[in-house]
Amino acid sequence: MTIAPVILLIEPQLVENIGMTARAMMNCGLIELRIVDPRDAWPLHDELQQRMLAASSGADEILQNARIYATAEEAIADLHYIYATTSRNHDMINRIMTPRAAIPDMVDRIGAGQKVGVMFGRERTGLVNDYIVLANAKITIPLNPEFASLNLAQSVLLIGYEWFQAKDKTEANRLHMGNTRPATREEYLNFYHRLESELESAGFFVAGDMRPTMTRSLQNMLQRAEMTEQEIRTWHGVLTALAGIPKRRKASDA
Amino acid sequence: MTIAPVILLIEPQLVENIGMTARAMMNCGLIELRIVDPRDAWPLHDELQQRMLAASSGADEILQNARIYATAEEAIADLHYIYATTSRNHDMINRIMTPRAAIPDMVDRIGAGQKVGVMFGRERTGLVNDYIVLANAKITIPLNPEFASLNLAQSVLLIGYEWFQAKDKTEANRLHMGNTRPATREEYLNFYHRLESELESAGFFVAGDMRPTMTRSLQNMLQRAEMTEQEIRTWHGVLTALAGIPKRRKASDA
Repeated sequence: MTIAPVILLIEPQLVENIGMTARAMMNCGLIELRIVDPRDAWPLHDELQQRMLAASSGADEILQNARIYATAEEAIADLHYIYATTSRNHDMINRIMTPRAAIPDMVDRIGAGQKVGVMFGRERTGLVNDYIVLANAKITIPLNPEFASLNLAQSVLLIGYEWFQAKDKTEANRLHMGNTRPATREEYLNFYHRLESELESAGFFVAGDMRPTMTRSLQNMLQRAEMTEQEIRTWHGVLTALAGIPKRRKASDA
Repeated sequence: MTIAPVILLIEPQLVENIGMTARAMMNCGLIELRIVDPRDAWPLHDELQQRMLAASSGADEILQNARIYATAEEAIADLHYIYATTSRNHDMINRIMTPRAAIPDMVDRIGAGQKVGVMFGRERTGLVNDYIVLANAKITIPLNPEFASLNLAQSVLLIGYEWFQAKDKTEANRLHMGNTRPATREEYLNFYHRLESELESAGFFVAGDMRPTMTRSLQNMLQRAEMTEQEIRTWHGVLTALAGIPKRRKASDA
């Protein structure tokens, strides 16, 4: 059962790019690679094979399972919906999607049991019209229009990246706390009140009428830091060190 | 004035990766590159310079304007907010964002006049703790946890890609129509009624009680294609060719 889009490389010229494509696919949880009419005949002879494997940085499994086809028609025959990646506007009437719009479409189709494929053209020329017309829709990656040319494997990476994000459940923004936990308001306020009283003893609040402004400012900054329970304990230690014996003695002398 | 995040490469080892980083930056509209303690001394000697430029595929401008620093502290001194990219969980209490969450945060900060930077660690080791602690937040790119290692320039590309998407106004999903326009309902219905009448003449609707089902099916398919005005004219031509003189004569003979 296909659970991810099939990646189709059309007429790839450099084995390094095939290897780097496999690496990018592996990064993104894509598994099935089909190669149409590569420049170098398969099976590759030893030296090319080694160069491809080196470029794949360990994504051998994808390369071992890759299938080679003489024509794109054969390579897409069993698929239901094809996207063609291209940075150019062809003189054709086509649906054009950004990767971010294409991925939910792919996810829906795959969820409905369709096998989908994404075609990538050869280095430099991209997909010519004869290949574009085999696709149901085009994907164009929005990039700097004055410098839009991407390496083949980088195009695969960006599509694969969007695919991975669509399924990924990572919290978008979190405070990593290891074995500790956020401080409770009580722990925080205990610390803050201790700080305030130490500052009072140390004669920090010289101008009495500035005290409310000053305490609000300290509190705001401290609360913004979202301290953990462990950090509260560390800062208690800091306070003990700074407002230590000599000053305490001085305060009690007064 | 900084209008995009500054990219900081910390201890990069390979000049090819610096070149490819410049290319990825150029693809994504990033302009300012700072390099901290590179393996090879700058200015690079000729051969290394050539290898870097070749890898940059024409993004020379970024490389010419790149600044080199002995320490990360110097490189970030004038910035207001720093993100550290990493794929590892360090034993530290840190805010961790996905690129998709970090970019709106960057956009807001830059909009408010802040200069922001994104740090990328050296190949293989990434950013060690001494560098992570210089950053306000970490960015971790969600990828296949069993194969998450990205080439340096690919990490820069993914962050740059997200940055570009945040500003980009490309329609997410559109029908590219060149010089034509969508067919009006009248143009479409004229075509459809002509098709139906040609089919009637040709004896297509043999079982009379199936006719409503059949016509609905044809209409549904044709409407799904969202034909353009030009395509309607093409299909009128197709109809004329298929239901041409011989058949017409036959129909008028009947």
